[in-house]
Amino acid sequence: MTAYAELMEFQRQTEALASIAGRLGWDQETMMPRGAADQRGEEMAAIEGILHERRTDARLGEWLAKAVATDAVSAANLRHIRQKYERNIKVPAKLAAEIARVTSVAQGVWAGARGAEDVAAFLPTLENVVRLRREEGAALANGNDVYDALLNDYEPGTKSGDLAAMFGALRPRLVALRAAIRAAEAPAPMTQSFDEAGQLALSQKLALAFGYDLNRGRIDKAVHPFSSGSGSDVRITTRTNPVDPFNCFYSTIHEVGHAAYEQGIDPTYALTPLGQGVSMGVHESQSRIYENQLGRSRAFTGWLFGQMRDQFGDFGIKDEEAFYRVVNRVSDGFIRTEADEVQYNLHVLIRFDLEQALMRGDLAVADLEAAWNDRFAADFGFAVDKPSHGVLQDVHWSVGLFGYFPTYSVGNVYAGCLHQSLRAALPGIDDDLARGDTSRATGWLRENVQRHGGLYEPREIITRAAGQAPTEGPLLDYLEAKFKGLYGL
Amino acid sequence: MTAYAELMEFQRQTEALASIAGRLGWDQETMMPRGAADQRGEEMAAIEGILHERRTDARLGEWLAKAVATDAVSAANLRHIRQKYERNIKVPAKLAAEIARVTSVAQGVWAGARGAEDVAAFLPTLENVVRLRREEGAALANGNDVYDALLNDYEPGTKSGDLAAMFGALRPRLVALRAAIRAAEAPAPMTQSFDEAGQLALSQKLALAFGYDLNRGRIDKAVHPFSSGSGSDVRITTRTNPVDPFNCFYSTIHEVGHAAYEQGIDPTYALTPLGQGVSMGVHESQSRIYENQLGRSRAFTGWLFGQMRDQFGDFGIKDEEAFYRVVNRVSDGFIRTEADEVQYNLHVLIRFDLEQALMRGDLAVADLEAAWNDRFAADFGFAVDKPSHGVLQDVHWSVGLFGYFPTYSVGNVYAGCLHQSLRAALPGIDDDLARGDTSRATGWLRENVQRHGGLYEPREIITRAAGQAPTEGPLLDYLEAKFKGLYGL
Repeated sequence: MTAYAELMEFQRQTEALASIAGRLGWDQETMMPRGAADQRGEEMAAIEGILHERRTDARLGEWLAKAVATDAVSAANLRHIRQKYERNIKVPAKLAAEIARVTSVAQGVWAGARGAEDVAAFLPTLENVVRLRREEGAALANGNDVYDALLNDYEPGTKSGDLAAMFGALRPRLVALRAAIRAAEAPAPMTQSFDEAGQLALSQKLALAFGYDLNRGRIDKAVHPFSSGSGSDVRITTRTNPVDPFNCFYSTIHEVGHAAYEQGIDPTYALTPLGQGVSMGVHESQSRIYENQLGRSRAFTGWLFGQMRDQFGDFGIKDEEAFYRVVNRVSDGFIRTEADEVQYNLHVLIRFDLEQALMRGDLAVADLEAAWNDRFAADFGFAVDKPSHGVLQDVHWSVGLFGYFPTYSVGNVYAGCLHQSLRAALPGIDDDLARGDTSRATGWLRENVQRHGGLYEPREIITRAAGQAPTEGPLLDYLEAKFKGLYGL
Repeated sequence: MTAYAELMEFQRQTEALASIAGRLGWDQETMMPRGAADQRGEEMAAIEGILHERRTDARLGEWLAKAVATDAVSAANLRHIRQKYERNIKVPAKLAAEIARVTSVAQGVWAGARGAEDVAAFLPTLENVVRLRREEGAALANGNDVYDALLNDYEPGTKSGDLAAMFGALRPRLVALRAAIRAAEAPAPMTQSFDEAGQLALSQKLALAFGYDLNRGRIDKAVHPFSSGSGSDVRITTRTNPVDPFNCFYSTIHEVGHAAYEQGIDPTYALTPLGQGVSMGVHESQSRIYENQLGRSRAFTGWLFGQMRDQFGDFGIKDEEAFYRVVNRVSDGFIRTEADEVQYNLHVLIRFDLEQALMRGDLAVADLEAAWNDRFAADFGFAVDKPSHGVLQDVHWSVGLFGYFPTYSVGNVYAGCLHQSLRAALPGIDDDLARGDTSRATGWLRENVQRHGGLYEPREIITRAAGQAPTEGPLLDYLEAKFKGLYGL
């Protein structure tokens, strides 16, 4: 056996074990009995321990030194394995264990503090998490920027300076668009109730309409919607809210976007480093283009209006045009995950700037809440009323996810680029969407993005698909055109 | 750290990984998308590979050489780990891998042959499985009996000679009882249909009535009912058949018996060798005493009759007495898993005698079907009509489970002993059961059997609970008294 073949056999088992760990995570959020949490914690620790051993196994270094790439696929496999291995062995085992220990407790502390609206109760824990992740970032950075080193875990090959320039161009136009919309008249929100069985039936229909393959997946209910797994077992979850069926429908379409990426990857890449979405940003580009540019389009919402009438009867919205306006209603809100297309990225940009400052030591944890509240007031024009609506709203920092937040906006920017290119390639696509037929649109995404899995670097795959390097322009142009039209600006 | 502490820490992680593998098995039978089978096969192989490495890890030998027991619990832990380790290192890695490879394919071959009623299509595969398991048995036996070596995996400390004597005493009295019943008038079977939702609702009520803890478990539907998991996550499955609600109800009670054993073990034993049921036979004693001696008793069926009337209205059975007769109806049948209390062990005894002969080389695979059919006709008085009703009916041999079948009857014998002792200890228990209250009965089993987990050897735990060494007498006396009464013999 060649060194490459030996390496890939070892790697394949590691990928299979990682897939098992992911499946346990799914089980925990959907099926696990409540009383099993402690035992599950030990089970997860055991398999994560095995994975850590394998990911830092010295044999990886030996195989990598000898392995020879013979084609683009083997070159990409070696690139992924080498990058992860070199990253993992830079982090001292003691530090990795300490981070695992602290973050496993921190999530509970954060949840308690959020429930009690008590920022101070969270700060000592956050201080610890920040300190440990800065230490990890320094170990990874080799004297370069600490935040870039962390960002690299989620969006390989992307520099925070480039993101800062891109987001710097996004922010003023989004703030201005938001302010203009806020001054205009908004459509009234829906007030009717929608039964759960009907919401779940229609959300499954939407999942199938967007190409989700139930032979290689399943849909369950969970507190937070998510997509989980790769290859031939990619499961999604959704949730329902009696007075907000769009939460169910667009969460489902969003997760189907993530799942379609995983289900669309070339099956020969399964259980190899190429067999998953290549970065968080590219992943989010798929979920967002399914959810927003396609799912919230005038054409598709026209079809959805008919589906809702079939499912729920007359629900108080008079026609497709009024329905399109309700689906895309922009309103004041504190919560990122509930934000519309216009405001969503403004939420992310707050976190990006604050977490960079935390990681670089430019902001003390003690000053975080004040910095958050100042920035929120500046961009949104009203004040945060309580910590659960502000600095305590997201779980990410408690579990040490610094460098993750910007990938949400990276995904939106990528989605903007892909959407521009998709529309140019597929004239008349609105006629399809108006019939609920997404197959040409999703087929274009599968062909140009999804099937490649990890073959290309994140920016490269977007550049190939969009015909130009990723930039914020198409997203901004799309948002301004859509919402100026909707609000008669 | 002492050698014992190091050993137990390593063992604890192994137990946690084994628990994960068990959970994957549950997922496969209940939740997994159909298209995920191949990928799941690789995942299972990866975690089984890790488990095999850990179970034959040379460090176990070193720790075992140094570890010192300080109390009954540590002595029992060392006994379990030592027995398994010494067993596992006797089997050459190449043979273990070959058995895994062949049996993973054999199950599909068996299912195909059974579907086609084609014994010949299965024989070459079975020949292979028999050869490999004989080889494994020889490696384990150290010159002693090959079949005993295999039996020891499922019922540690039990010799086939002792079982042969016990089963030899069972068989004539069961054959005679069966013949007498067959000559008497049987109650008519039920003919009504019972809706699935009603069956599932009542089966959950039955599970709770028998003490199943849903905070540490859950109930799902599956093709074959089973119980899965240990400690604080013990899940069961059930199934429904529109015209046979007893299949659903008594499968559920049976699996609750298995699950109650796992849920009843001292929680301080969790993720140690003492944290699971100690043998297949003791496990089956719990499922069978819940299902039969308690669940099919005159007292409990009286309560169940009322529950069924509440759930389904008048279903054509006039009173409790008639209902008791229908629940315990004895009728001709070919299938072990559908057999009543009287005939069940006769099915098992056929398999026990035939598999011993196969393993000892006294019966050729080519002659197996004829031997089965002769024996069946002798014990049951009518002929096997097709292979799926005969030698092809059970999956066990295809996956190499030789030595497993007798544990079903061992469990029934143990249940007979425990039932005699339980009734002596709890006078008036029928008054409880007639109210659907099993708590004193299950409490006695938890106290005397379940809580001990793997602390005592199988025969020892039954001897302690029953006040005498296990013997077939109480089971036979119970069956004869019950069915002579039911059939007026």
